[in-house]
Amino acid sequence: MVDAKPIGRLCIVGVGLIGGSLARALKREGAVGEVIGAGRRETALREALEMGVVDRVETDWSVAVSQADVVVVAVPLGAMFSVFTAIADHLPADCVLTDVGSAKGSVVADVCRVFGRPPGSFVPAHPIAGTEKGGVGASFPELFRNRRVILTPLVETDAGAHDVVRRMWEITGAEVVDMGVEHHDEVLAATSHLPHMLAYALVESLARMDDRAEIFRYAAGGFRDFTRIASSDPAMWHDICFANRGHVLESMGRFHRDLERLMDAIKDENSDVVMEIFRRAKHARDNLYFDQ
Amino acid sequence: MVDAKPIGRLCIVGVGLIGGSLARALKREGAVGEVIGAGRRETALREALEMGVVDRVETDWSVAVSQADVVVVAVPLGAMFSVFTAIADHLPADCVLTDVGSAKGSVVADVCRVFGRPPGSFVPAHPIAGTEKGGVGASFPELFRNRRVILTPLVETDAGAHDVVRRMWEITGAEVVDMGVEHHDEVLAATSHLPHMLAYALVESLARMDDRAEIFRYAAGGFRDFTRIASSDPAMWHDICFANRGHVLESMGRFHRDLERLMDAIKDENSDVVMEIFRRAKHARDNLYFDQ
Repeated sequence: MVDAKPIGRLCIVGVGLIGGSLARALKREGAVGEVIGAGRRETALREALEMGVVDRVETDWSVAVSQADVVVVAVPLGAMFSVFTAIADHLPADCVLTDVGSAKGSVVADVCRVFGRPPGSFVPAHPIAGTEKGGVGASFPELFRNRRVILTPLVETDAGAHDVVRRMWEITGAEVVDMGVEHHDEVLAATSHLPHMLAYALVESLARMDDRAEIFRYAAGGFRDFTRIASSDPAMWHDICFANRGHVLESMGRFHRDLERLMDAIKDENSDVVMEIFRRAKHARDNLYFDQ
Repeated sequence: MVDAKPIGRLCIVGVGLIGGSLARALKREGAVGEVIGAGRRETALREALEMGVVDRVETDWSVAVSQADVVVVAVPLGAMFSVFTAIADHLPADCVLTDVGSAKGSVVADVCRVFGRPPGSFVPAHPIAGTEKGGVGASFPELFRNRRVILTPLVETDAGAHDVVRRMWEITGAEVVDMGVEHHDEVLAATSHLPHMLAYALVESLARMDDRAEIFRYAAGGFRDFTRIASSDPAMWHDICFANRGHVLESMGRFHRDLERLMDAIKDENSDVVMEIFRRAKHARDNLYFDQ
């Protein structure tokens, strides 16, 4: 009986790294009756089916979601609105709706535009996990183990739906926490979106230099680690930086000013200021950073 | 007979991560007769002796170098001048002098200030290797394997001395290349010094925010990799950014402008420009970067 499982029928819209890893984690734990994969790219769906990540695929999203107990929308932020539009009228009454978007304000706004006001069954979520490689081929069931998943439930969110989504992520081995939408977007802008902007800007800046081949040739391990995130999917990050535009610009602006402060200190040969910046950074990196 | 080895007596001034790893690599290959450790910090020297990294220690540098066939100065850039001053009159006639500084122009300038003009026996060198952990305790003989060591020989440099230093680094498993002093400092400013400035500036910037504890708590793997180099020794990087001040400021200025370009594109919702920056960065990171 599928109903004996924590989740009966799970529909994943967008079976990529995140959606695929979630399905695999739940299947491995025996926590889901059936996984239906939905999406636009048929090759990705076929791959997911062949890998056993999903039990069946549906290219007609209205059919896919109409049979589900839980729908996880795991598409890029720029595609959220059109997915919600396509599925809104086909969600069963008791179906829990959640997403995995890296920014939450824009997803909530998309839901409001489509549904009028957020349904009680909607639980915005953001698993803080991923690699610079995307696609279902890169998925693995341990992706969320010991990672954090942030839920940003709304005043409209039903306690029952909230519990279902929390439990689903706990089964993957993640630590689940609640946070306000606005606060989530501000914190993630600082710790995730800003570093990605810096890595992209740096590598692109160096790639435009005349001696770029040599530049990259003499780069060492520190550079490799520092720029790894610049290998992330450009389309996904394009969507994130526009979806969380206000907070992203604010954190870029703050960094831009702080970088100028460091440049001025070096220019003015202000040794004490430079040492203090470096020391405080090392102290924070060594001591404040507890994750993993 | 120590003379049967590629290097008879090696004196390492400053037995930290780099000096210690060099000694261990050469010892493991049986390439050195005796290693004399010299330096200011007696505890570090004693640790090096106990670990078998050096065969004996000398706190009187003039004595240490007076017995050496090769002297490797592996101290922070800010200490180079005083070391050269202390040892200049005690170097044996045929002794090869080299260093491991991360900037080369400042080391050559220090040598010129002390010796008048660079001795033929002086071969500036920079092993592009290291970790964010320093000290002889973190040293290991494989540190330079498959890494690059850049030599920046001067017009005054003897071919024989050049050969000795090249051979020494090849024995550690490194790939040794020659480069001009100025060019070295420009390339390293872009690939190493600039990323360190950005990592320090970012972590320090976030560490000054009110909700810094939460900021760091929700940072994920990408952030950890991106900021790893901010754990590097502040004193060492203080010295590097002043020793290579011109090139560091130039590359910081270029990045500062390019970051502004990205901010403007996001502000203006110029989707195409943002996508192009991200795509070019990913392409460069995935394709141009061949090292390791």
